[in-house]
Amino acid sequence: MKLIQCTSAGVEKYAPFNWLGASTTLTNASGVHTDKVGEFGLMATLMLHERVPSIATRQRNHTWSRQLRGTAAGRRVMIYGVGALGGAIARRLHSADFRVTGVRRGGAPLASVERMITPDRVLEELPNVEILILACPLTPETQRVIGLRELSALPAGAGVLNLGRGGVIDHAALVSCLASGHLSGAILDVFDQEPLPPDSQLWDVPNLMVFPHVSADAPDGYIDRCLVILADNLGRSRAGKSLRNRVDPILGY
Amino acid sequence: MKLIQCTSAGVEKYAPFNWLGASTTLTNASGVHTDKVGEFGLMATLMLHERVPSIATRQRNHTWSRQLRGTAAGRRVMIYGVGALGGAIARRLHSADFRVTGVRRGGAPLASVERMITPDRVLEELPNVEILILACPLTPETQRVIGLRELSALPAGAGVLNLGRGGVIDHAALVSCLASGHLSGAILDVFDQEPLPPDSQLWDVPNLMVFPHVSADAPDGYIDRCLVILADNLGRSRAGKSLRNRVDPILGY
Repeated sequence: MKLIQCTSAGVEKYAPFNWLGASTTLTNASGVHTDKVGEFGLMATLMLHERVPSIATRQRNHTWSRQLRGTAAGRRVMIYGVGALGGAIARRLHSADFRVTGVRRGGAPLASVERMITPDRVLEELPNVEILILACPLTPETQRVIGLRELSALPAGAGVLNLGRGGVIDHAALVSCLASGHLSGAILDVFDQEPLPPDSQLWDVPNLMVFPHVSADAPDGYIDRCLVILADNLGRSRAGKSLRNRVDPILGY
Repeated sequence: MKLIQCTSAGVEKYAPFNWLGASTTLTNASGVHTDKVGEFGLMATLMLHERVPSIATRQRNHTWSRQLRGTAAGRRVMIYGVGALGGAIARRLHSADFRVTGVRRGGAPLASVERMITPDRVLEELPNVEILILACPLTPETQRVIGLRELSALPAGAGVLNLGRGGVIDHAALVSCLASGHLSGAILDVFDQEPLPPDSQLWDVPNLMVFPHVSADAPDGYIDRCLVILADNLGRSRAGKSLRNRVDPILGY
Protein backbone atom coordinates (compact mmCIF):
# COMPACT_ATOMS: atom_id res chain seq x y z
CA MET A 1 0.00 0.00 0.00
CA LYS A 2 1.54 3.27 -1.13
CA LEU A 3 -1.23 5.85 -0.83
CA ILE A 4 -4.44 6.23 1.17
CA GLN A 5 -6.67 9.13 0.07
CA CYS A 6 -9.22 10.19 2.71
CA THR A 7 -12.50 11.75 1.66
CA SER A 8 -12.50 14.16 4.62
CA ALA A 9 -10.23 17.07 5.42
CA GLY A 10 -10.10 16.22 9.14
CA VAL A 11 -8.37 12.90 9.89
CA GLU A 12 -8.39 13.00 13.71
CA LYS A 13 -10.51 9.86 13.92
CA TYR A 14 -7.61 7.82 12.48
CA ALA A 15 -5.08 9.19 15.01
CA PRO A 16 -2.62 8.22 16.38
CA PHE A 17 -1.02 7.24 13.12
CA ASN A 18 1.22 4.42 14.37
CA TRP A 19 -0.79 2.02 12.14
CA LEU A 20 0.56 3.80 9.06
CA GLY A 21 3.45 1.91 7.45
CA ALA A 22 6.65 3.85 6.75
CA SER A 23 6.16 3.50 2.99
CA THR A 24 2.46 4.49 2.96
CA THR A 25 1.33 8.08 2.53
CA LEU A 26 -1.99 9.31 3.92
CA THR A 27 -3.53 12.27 2.07
CA ASN A 28 -6.64 14.19 3.10
CA ALA A 29 -9.36 16.06 1.18
CA SER A 30 -8.32 19.53 2.31
CA GLY A 31 -9.43 22.09 -0.27
CA VAL A 32 -12.58 20.41 -1.58
CA HIS A 33 -14.73 22.69 0.57
CA THR A 34 -13.36 26.13 -0.08
CA ASP A 35 -16.12 27.91 -2.07
CA LYS A 36 -18.85 26.63 0.19
CA VAL A 37 -17.10 27.31 3.48
CA GLY A 38 -16.09 30.79 2.39
CA GLU A 39 -19.74 31.72 1.89
CA PHE A 40 -20.82 30.02 5.10
CA GLY A 41 -18.06 31.73 7.08
CA LEU A 42 -19.04 35.14 5.73
CA MET A 43 -22.71 34.49 6.54
CA ALA A 44 -21.99 33.28 10.08
CA THR A 45 -19.61 36.17 10.78
CA LEU A 46 -22.23 38.70 9.65
CA MET A 47 -24.78 36.85 11.84
CA LEU A 48 -22.54 37.13 14.90
CA HIS A 49 -21.88 40.79 14.15
CA GLU A 50 -25.63 41.40 13.78
CA ARG A 51 -26.32 39.40 17.00
CA VAL A 52 -28.62 36.95 15.22
CA PRO A 53 -28.17 34.22 17.89
CA SER A 54 -29.63 36.56 20.50
CA ILE A 55 -32.41 37.72 18.15
CA ALA A 56 -33.33 34.05 17.57
CA THR A 57 -33.36 33.42 21.32
CA ARG A 58 -35.60 36.46 21.89
CA GLN A 59 -37.96 35.24 19.19
CA ARG A 60 -38.56 32.08 21.23
CA ASN A 61 -39.66 34.36 24.10
CA HIS A 62 -41.72 36.68 21.84
CA THR A 63 -39.43 39.54 22.82
CA TRP A 64 -38.95 42.51 20.51
CA SER A 65 -35.73 44.25 21.48
CA ARG A 66 -34.14 46.66 19.04
CA GLN A 67 -30.40 46.83 19.52
CA LEU A 68 -29.02 48.61 16.50
CA ARG A 69 -25.68 47.44 15.18
CA GLY A 70 -23.31 49.52 13.10
CA THR A 71 -21.81 48.32 9.87
CA ALA A 72 -19.53 45.31 9.95
CA ALA A 73 -16.79 46.92 7.87
CA GLY A 74 -13.57 47.40 9.80
CA ARG A 75 -14.44 44.94 12.59
CA ARG A 76 -11.62 42.68 13.75
CA VAL A 77 -12.00 38.92 13.32
CA MET A 78 -9.51 36.24 14.41
CA ILE A 79 -9.38 33.05 12.37
CA TYR A 80 -7.69 30.28 14.33
CA GLY A 81 -6.30 28.05 11.58
CA VAL A 82 -5.88 29.53 8.10
CA GLY A 83 -5.50 26.36 6.05
CA ALA A 84 -7.93 25.52 3.26
CA LEU A 85 -11.07 26.34 5.32
CA GLY A 86 -9.78 29.31 7.31
CA GLY A 87 -7.99 30.73 4.29
CA ALA A 88 -11.19 30.64 2.20
CA ILE A 89 -13.06 32.43 4.99
CA ALA A 90 -10.27 35.00 5.32
CA ARG A 91 -10.59 35.86 1.62
CA ARG A 92 -14.35 36.39 1.90
CA LEU A 93 -14.10 38.44 5.10
CA HIS A 94 -11.32 40.56 3.64
CA SER A 95 -13.50 41.28 0.58
CA ALA A 96 -16.32 42.30 2.92
CA ASP A 97 -13.97 44.79 4.63
CA PHE A 98 -13.47 42.89 7.87
CA ARG A 99 -9.97 43.10 9.33
CA VAL A 100 -8.57 39.60 9.70
CA THR A 101 -6.06 38.32 12.23
CA GLY A 102 -4.89 34.82 11.34
CA VAL A 103 -3.37 32.15 13.57
CA ARG A 104 -0.95 29.72 11.94
CA ARG A 105 1.76 27.44 13.32
CA GLY A 106 4.36 28.70 10.90
CA GLY A 107 3.19 32.32 10.97
CA ALA A 108 3.67 32.68 7.19
CA PRO A 109 1.73 35.64 5.76
CA LEU A 110 -1.38 35.38 3.59
CA ALA A 111 -2.73 38.15 1.32
CA SER A 112 -6.17 38.46 2.91
CA VAL A 113 -4.86 38.25 6.49
CA GLU A 114 -3.85 41.66 7.77
CA ARG A 115 -2.04 40.29 10.80
CA MET A 116 -0.69 36.75 11.08
CA ILE A 117 0.38 35.40 14.47
CA THR A 118 1.61 32.10 15.89
CA PRO A 119 -0.50 30.14 18.42
CA ASP A 120 1.61 31.27 21.39
CA ARG A 121 0.47 34.87 20.84
CA VAL A 122 -3.28 34.18 20.70
CA LEU A 123 -4.03 35.07 24.32
CA GLU A 124 -2.54 38.55 24.04
CA GLU A 125 -4.37 39.23 20.76
CA LEU A 126 -7.84 38.10 21.83
CA PRO A 127 -8.77 41.41 23.57
CA ASN A 128 -8.60 43.12 20.14
CA VAL A 129 -10.97 40.73 18.43
CA GLU A 130 -14.77 41.02 18.11
CA ILE A 131 -15.35 37.64 16.52
CA LEU A 132 -13.31 34.45 16.97
CA ILE A 133 -13.54 31.79 14.26
CA LEU A 134 -12.18 28.32 14.90
CA ALA A 135 -11.16 26.62 11.66
CA CYS A 136 -8.27 24.43 12.76
CA PRO A 137 -7.91 20.64 12.64
CA LEU A 138 -8.24 18.63 15.86
CA THR A 139 -4.80 17.49 16.94
CA PRO A 140 -3.14 16.91 20.32
CA GLU A 141 -2.05 20.56 20.10
CA THR A 142 -5.50 22.01 19.44
CA GLN A 143 -7.51 19.77 21.81
CA ARG A 144 -9.61 22.24 23.93
CA VAL A 145 -7.20 24.99 22.95
CA ILE A 146 -10.01 27.53 23.50
CA GLY A 147 -11.08 27.39 27.13
CA LEU A 148 -12.31 29.74 29.83
CA ARG A 149 -9.04 31.70 29.85
CA GLU A 150 -9.19 32.39 26.11
CA LEU A 151 -12.92 33.17 26.00
CA SER A 152 -12.57 35.50 28.99
CA ALA A 153 -9.80 37.36 27.14
CA LEU A 154 -12.22 38.32 24.37
CA PRO A 155 -13.87 41.73 24.85
CA ALA A 156 -17.43 41.89 26.25
CA GLY A 157 -19.98 41.31 23.49
CA ALA A 158 -17.69 39.18 21.33
CA GLY A 159 -19.00 36.24 19.28
CA VAL A 160 -17.58 32.78 18.56
CA LEU A 161 -17.94 30.54 15.49
CA ASN A 162 -16.63 26.97 15.44
CA LEU A 163 -16.54 25.08 12.15
CA GLY A 164 -13.27 23.22 12.71
CA ARG A 165 -13.89 20.34 15.10
CA GLY A 166 -15.91 20.17 18.33
CA GLY A 167 -12.88 19.11 20.36
CA VAL A 168 -10.99 22.38 19.95
CA ILE A 169 -13.30 24.30 22.32
CA ASP A 170 -14.30 23.74 25.93
CA HIS A 171 -18.09 23.74 25.69
CA ALA A 172 -18.68 24.22 29.43
CA ALA A 173 -16.56 27.39 29.30
CA LEU A 174 -18.45 28.59 26.24
CA VAL A 175 -21.83 28.04 27.90
CA SER A 176 -20.67 29.85 31.02
CA CYS A 177 -19.47 32.88 29.00
CA LEU A 178 -22.78 32.98 27.11
CA ALA A 179 -24.78 32.70 30.35
CA SER A 180 -22.87 35.55 31.98
CA GLY A 181 -23.45 37.75 28.92
CA HIS A 182 -19.70 38.14 28.37
CA LEU A 183 -20.16 36.65 24.91
CA SER A 184 -23.06 37.99 22.82
CA GLY A 185 -23.52 34.82 20.82
CA ALA A 186 -22.05 31.68 19.35
CA ILE A 187 -22.57 29.55 16.27
CA LEU A 188 -21.43 25.93 16.41
CA ASP A 189 -21.37 23.69 13.35
CA VAL A 190 -19.24 20.91 14.88
CA PHE A 191 -19.59 18.93 18.12
CA ASP A 192 -17.80 16.32 20.19
CA GLN A 193 -20.49 13.83 19.23
CA GLU A 194 -22.35 14.09 15.92
CA PRO A 195 -25.26 14.03 15.44
CA LEU A 196 -25.60 16.13 18.59
CA PRO A 197 -27.67 13.88 20.92
CA PRO A 198 -31.28 15.04 21.46
CA ASP A 199 -30.63 15.36 25.21
CA SER A 200 -27.55 17.58 24.84
CA GLN A 201 -27.88 20.77 26.86
CA LEU A 202 -26.36 22.72 23.97
CA TRP A 203 -29.65 22.75 22.02
CA ASP A 204 -31.26 25.10 24.54
CA VAL A 205 -28.41 27.42 25.53
CA PRO A 206 -29.56 31.02 25.03
CA ASN A 207 -27.70 32.94 22.31
CA LEU A 208 -26.20 29.76 20.87
CA MET A 209 -27.14 28.53 17.40
CA VAL A 210 -26.65 24.85 16.56
CA PHE A 211 -25.89 23.96 12.93
CA PRO A 212 -25.83 20.29 11.85
CA HIS A 213 -22.28 20.24 10.40
CA VAL A 214 -23.19 21.86 7.09
CA SER A 215 -20.65 24.68 6.84
CA ALA A 216 -18.25 23.08 4.42
CA ASP A 217 -20.00 20.33 2.49
CA ALA A 218 -21.80 21.02 -0.78
CA PRO A 219 -24.09 18.29 -2.14
CA ASP A 220 -22.65 18.29 -5.64
CA GLY A 221 -19.26 17.27 -6.90
CA TYR A 222 -17.73 16.38 -3.55
CA ILE A 223 -16.38 12.97 -4.56
CA ASP A 224 -15.35 14.38 -7.94
CA ARG A 225 -13.22 16.96 -6.17
CA CYS A 226 -11.68 14.24 -3.97
CA LEU A 227 -10.91 12.17 -7.06
CA VAL A 228 -9.17 15.16 -8.64
CA ILE A 229 -6.83 15.24 -5.64
CA LEU A 230 -6.27 11.48 -5.89
CA ALA A 231 -5.61 11.61 -9.65
CA ASP A 232 -3.21 14.49 -9.16
CA ASN A 233 -1.37 12.50 -6.48
CA LEU A 234 -1.17 9.35 -8.59
CA GLY A 235 0.47 11.44 -11.32
CA ARG A 236 2.84 13.03 -8.80
CA SER A 237 3.68 9.66 -7.29
CA ARG A 238 4.54 8.20 -10.71
CA ALA A 239 6.68 11.26 -11.50
CA GLY A 240 8.45 10.98 -8.16
CA LYS A 241 7.13 14.36 -6.99
CA SER A 242 5.92 15.21 -3.48
CA LEU A 243 2.23 14.57 -2.84
CA ARG A 244 -0.52 17.12 -2.24
CA ASN A 245 -2.43 17.14 1.10
CA ARG A 246 -0.01 14.75 2.77
CA VAL A 247 -0.95 14.19 6.42
CA ASP A 248 2.01 14.51 8.79
CA PRO A 249 1.68 11.52 11.17
CA ILE A 250 3.33 13.49 13.99
CA LEU A 251 1.41 16.78 13.64
CA GLY A 252 -1.79 14.86 12.92
CA TYR A 253 -3.07 16.95 9.99
CA MET B 1 -43.20 76.53 5.12
CA LYS B 2 -41.03 75.61 2.15
CA LEU B 3 -39.36 72.35 3.10
CA ILE B 4 -40.04 69.46 5.47
CA GLN B 5 -37.18 66.97 5.86
CA CYS B 6 -38.26 63.58 7.29
CA THR B 7 -35.81 61.50 9.29
CA SER B 8 -37.15 58.25 7.81
CA ALA B 9 -36.99 56.88 4.29
CA GLY B 10 -40.56 55.54 4.41
CA VAL B 11 -43.22 58.26 4.70
CA GLU B 12 -46.37 56.13 4.44
CA LYS B 13 -47.55 57.18 7.89
CA TYR B 14 -48.03 60.75 6.61
CA ALA B 15 -50.13 59.65 3.60
CA PRO B 16 -52.37 60.77 1.95
CA PHE B 17 -50.47 63.97 1.33
CA ASN B 18 -53.42 66.33 0.88
CA TRP B 19 -52.20 68.23 3.99
CA LEU B 20 -49.09 69.30 2.08
CA GLY B 21 -49.36 72.85 0.77
CA ALA B 22 -48.63 73.43 -2.92
CA SER B 23 -45.51 75.45 -2.11
CA THR B 24 -44.11 73.02 0.48
CA THR B 25 -41.73 70.20 -0.47
CA LEU B 26 -41.48 67.01 1.60
CA THR B 27 -38.13 65.22 1.43
CA ASN B 28 -37.30 61.84 2.95
CA ALA B 29 -34.13 60.28 4.37
CA SER B 30 -33.65 57.77 1.56
CA GLY B 31 -29.97 56.87 1.29
CA VAL B 32 -28.92 57.19 4.93
CA HIS B 33 -29.11 53.42 5.38
CA THR B 34 -27.24 52.08 2.42
CA ASP B 35 -24.02 50.59 3.91
CA LYS B 36 -25.86 48.94 6.75
CA VAL B 37 -28.74 47.53 4.72
CA GLY B 38 -26.37 46.22 2.05
CA GLU B 39 -24.60 44.09 4.65
CA PHE B 40 -27.85 42.99 6.27
CA GLY B 41 -29.37 42.09 2.90
CA LEU B 42 -26.34 39.98 1.97
CA MET B 43 -26.44 38.21 5.35
CA ALA B 44 -30.16 37.48 5.17
CA THR B 45 -29.94 36.27 1.57
CA LEU B 46 -27.12 33.87 2.48
CA MET B 47 -29.22 32.73 5.47
CA LEU B 48 -32.20 31.97 3.24
CA HIS B 49 -29.96 30.16 0.76
CA GLU B 50 -28.44 28.13 3.62
CA ARG B 51 -31.94 27.44 5.06
CA VAL B 52 -31.06 28.98 8.44
CA PRO B 53 -34.74 29.64 9.36
CA SER B 54 -35.43 25.91 9.15
CA ILE B 55 -32.21 25.03 11.00
CA ALA B 56 -33.27 27.43 13.81
CA THR B 57 -36.72 25.82 13.92
CA ARG B 58 -35.18 22.34 14.12
CA GLN B 59 -32.91 23.50 16.95
CA ARG B 60 -36.01 24.28 19.03
CA ASN B 61 -37.04 20.63 18.55
CA HIS B 62 -33.51 19.25 19.17
CA THR B 63 -33.52 17.87 15.62
CA TRP B 64 -30.25 17.30 13.77
CA SER B 65 -31.05 17.14 10.06
CA ARG B 66 -28.21 17.57 7.59
CA GLN B 67 -29.46 18.99 4.31
CA LEU B 68 -26.41 20.07 2.39
CA ARG B 69 -26.69 23.20 0.31
CA GLY B 70 -24.53 24.04 -2.67
CA THR B 71 -22.76 27.34 -3.09
CA ALA B 72 -24.84 30.48 -3.39
CA ALA B 73 -22.99 31.81 -6.42
CA GLY B 74 -25.18 31.99 -9.50
CA ARG B 75 -28.51 31.75 -7.64
CA ARG B 76 -31.26 34.06 -8.85
CA VAL B 77 -32.63 36.69 -6.46
CA MET B 78 -35.44 39.15 -7.18
CA ILE B 79 -35.31 42.51 -5.43
CA TYR B 80 -38.72 44.19 -5.49
CA GLY B 81 -37.82 47.88 -5.29
CA VAL B 82 -34.30 48.94 -6.20
CA GLY B 83 -34.21 52.41 -4.68
CA ALA B 84 -31.66 53.32 -2.03
CA LEU B 85 -32.23 50.13 0.03
CA GLY B 86 -32.78 47.63 -2.76
CA GLY B 87 -29.99 49.15 -4.84
CA ALA B 88 -27.50 48.79 -1.97
CA ILE B 89 -28.51 45.16 -1.54
CA ALA B 90 -28.22 44.55 -5.29
CA ARG B 91 -24.63 45.81 -5.25
CA ARG B 92 -23.68 43.47 -2.40
CA LEU B 93 -25.42 40.46 -3.93
CA HIS B 94 -23.88 41.12 -7.31
CA SER B 95 -20.41 41.23 -5.68
CA ALA B 96 -21.18 37.89 -4.01
CA ASP B 97 -22.00 36.38 -7.44
CA PHE B 98 -25.77 36.18 -7.03
CA ARG B 99 -27.74 36.95 -10.18
CA VAL B 100 -30.10 39.83 -9.49
CA THR B 101 -33.47 40.57 -11.07
CA GLY B 102 -34.70 44.04 -10.12
CA VAL B 103 -38.25 45.41 -10.09
CA ARG B 104 -38.65 49.12 -10.71
CA ARG B 105 -41.58 51.25 -11.84
CA GLY B 106 -39.58 52.98 -14.57
CA GLY B 107 -37.60 49.86 -15.53
CA ALA B 108 -34.38 51.88 -15.89
CA PRO B 109 -31.24 49.66 -15.76
CA LEU B 110 -28.79 49.53 -12.86
CA ALA B 111 -25.22 48.19 -13.09
CA SER B 112 -25.54 45.46 -10.45
CA VAL B 113 -28.96 44.29 -11.66
CA GLU B 114 -28.64 41.73 -14.44
CA ARG B 115 -32.29 41.91 -15.42
CA MET B 116 -34.58 44.86 -14.65
CA ILE B 117 -38.34 44.48 -15.03
CA THR B 118 -41.43 46.57 -14.38
CA PRO B 119 -43.98 45.54 -11.71
CA ASP B 120 -46.48 44.19 -14.28
CA ARG B 121 -43.97 41.46 -15.24
CA VAL B 122 -43.26 40.20 -11.70
CA LEU B 123 -45.67 37.27 -11.80
CA GLU B 124 -44.13 35.74 -14.91
CA GLU B 125 -40.60 36.17 -13.52
CA LEU B 126 -41.20 34.68 -10.06
CA PRO B 127 -40.82 31.02 -11.17
CA ASN B 128 -37.16 31.77 -12.04
CA VAL B 129 -36.29 33.20 -8.63
CA GLU B 130 -34.94 31.32 -5.59
CA ILE B 131 -35.11 34.22 -3.18
CA LEU B 132 -37.53 37.16 -3.19
CA ILE B 133 -36.48 40.34 -1.39
CA LEU B 134 -39.04 43.06 -0.70
CA ALA B 135 -37.38 46.47 -0.42
CA CYS B 136 -40.09 48.78 -1.75
CA PRO B 137 -41.92 51.63 0.01
CA LEU B 138 -45.50 51.13 1.18
CA THR B 139 -47.82 53.00 -1.19
CA PRO B 140 -51.35 52.39 -2.47
CA GLU B 141 -49.68 50.52 -5.36
CA THR B 142 -47.55 48.18 -3.20
CA GLN B 143 -50.13 47.48 -0.46
CA ARG B 144 -50.19 43.62 -0.14
CA VAL B 145 -48.63 43.43 -3.59
CA ILE B 146 -47.17 40.02 -2.65
CA GLY B 147 -50.02 37.63 -1.90
CA LEU B 148 -50.85 33.96 -2.31
CA ARG B 149 -50.72 34.17 -6.10
CA GLU B 150 -47.22 35.66 -6.12
CA LEU B 151 -45.82 33.37 -3.41
CA SER B 152 -47.29 30.32 -5.15
CA ALA B 153 -45.53 31.39 -8.36
CA LEU B 154 -42.13 31.03 -6.66
CA PRO B 155 -40.48 27.62 -7.15
CA ALA B 156 -40.71 25.03 -4.34
CA GLY B 157 -38.05 25.70 -1.70
CA ALA B 158 -37.82 29.45 -2.34
CA GLY B 159 -37.20 31.94 0.47
CA VAL B 160 -38.62 35.40 1.20
CA LEU B 161 -37.04 38.43 2.90
CA ASN B 162 -39.04 41.54 3.73
CA LEU B 163 -37.23 44.65 4.89
CA GLY B 164 -39.40 47.23 3.13
CA ARG B 165 -42.65 47.62 5.03
CA GLY B 166 -44.94 45.00 6.60
CA GLY B 167 -47.91 46.12 4.51
CA VAL B 168 -46.43 45.00 1.18
CA ILE B 169 -46.93 41.29 1.94
CA ASP B 170 -49.99 39.22 2.85
CA HIS B 171 -48.86 37.51 6.05
CA ALA B 172 -51.61 34.88 6.04
CA ALA B 173 -50.50 33.80 2.57
CA LEU B 174 -46.87 33.72 3.70
CA VAL B 175 -47.70 31.57 6.74
CA SER B 176 -49.73 29.19 4.58
CA CYS B 177 -46.86 28.77 2.07
CA LEU B 178 -44.42 28.12 4.92
CA ALA B 179 -46.77 25.60 6.54
CA SER B 180 -47.22 23.68 3.30
CA GLY B 181 -43.46 23.55 2.77
CA HIS B 182 -43.73 25.38 -0.55
CA LEU B 183 -41.43 28.06 0.88
CA SER B 184 -38.32 26.84 2.72
CA GLY B 185 -38.05 29.89 4.93
CA ALA B 186 -38.71 33.57 5.49
CA ILE B 187 -37.02 36.44 7.28
CA LEU B 188 -39.17 39.41 8.26
CA ASP B 189 -37.71 42.63 9.62
CA VAL B 190 -40.86 44.76 9.23
CA PHE B 191 -44.45 44.21 10.38
CA ASP B 192 -47.89 45.75 10.17
CA GLN B 193 -47.62 46.69 13.83
CA GLU B 194 -44.26 47.39 15.47
CA PRO B 195 -43.15 46.29 17.97
CA LEU B 196 -44.71 42.98 16.91
CA PRO B 197 -47.23 42.27 19.72
CA PRO B 198 -46.25 39.41 22.10
CA ASP B 199 -49.40 37.49 21.14
CA SER B 200 -48.78 37.65 17.37
CA GLN B 201 -48.85 34.20 15.81
CA LEU B 202 -45.85 35.17 13.65
CA TRP B 203 -43.39 34.60 16.52
CA ASP B 204 -43.98 30.83 16.45
CA VAL B 205 -44.39 30.08 12.74
CA PRO B 206 -41.92 27.31 11.79
CA ASN B 207 -39.17 28.36 9.37
CA LEU B 208 -39.90 32.06 9.93
CA MET B 209 -37.35 34.33 11.60
CA VAL B 210 -38.53 37.55 13.22
CA PHE B 211 -36.11 40.49 13.31
CA PRO B 212 -36.99 43.63 15.30
CA HIS B 213 -36.68 46.18 12.45
CA VAL B 214 -32.89 46.39 12.54
CA SER B 215 -31.95 45.82 8.91
CA ALA B 216 -31.29 49.39 7.90
CA ASP B 217 -30.55 51.48 10.98
CA ALA B 218 -27.04 51.91 12.31
CA PRO B 219 -26.64 53.42 15.79
CA ASP B 220 -24.05 56.00 14.78
CA GLY B 221 -24.29 59.01 12.54
CA TYR B 222 -27.93 58.55 11.54
CA ILE B 223 -29.03 62.10 12.28
CA ASP B 224 -25.77 63.42 10.86
CA ARG B 225 -26.55 61.74 7.56
CA CYS B 226 -30.08 63.18 7.61
CA LEU B 227 -28.67 66.65 8.25
CA VAL B 228 -26.33 66.25 5.28
CA ILE B 229 -29.40 65.71 3.07
CA LEU B 230 -31.13 68.72 4.64
CA ALA B 231 -28.07 70.97 4.24
CA ASP B 232 -27.68 69.87 0.63
CA ASN B 233 -31.35 70.67 -0.01
CA LEU B 234 -31.14 74.10 1.64
CA GLY B 235 -28.27 74.91 -0.71
CA ARG B 236 -30.17 73.57 -3.70
CA SER B 237 -33.28 75.52 -2.69
CA ARG B 238 -31.33 78.76 -2.44
CA ALA B 239 -29.71 78.09 -5.83
CA GLY B 240 -33.11 77.37 -7.39
CA LYS B 241 -32.14 73.75 -8.15
CA SER B 242 -34.37 70.70 -7.79
CA LEU B 243 -34.30 69.03 -4.38
CA ARG B 244 -32.90 65.61 -3.45
CA ASN B 245 -35.21 62.88 -2.07
CA ARG B 246 -38.40 64.81 -2.92
CA VAL B 247 -41.50 62.79 -2.04
CA ASP B 248 -44.06 62.72 -4.85
CA PRO B 249 -47.43 63.35 -3.12
CA ILE B 250 -49.27 61.29 -5.75
CA LEU B 251 -46.91 58.26 -5.86
CA GLY B 252 -46.47 58.43 -2.09
CA TYR B 253 -42.68 57.96 -1.96
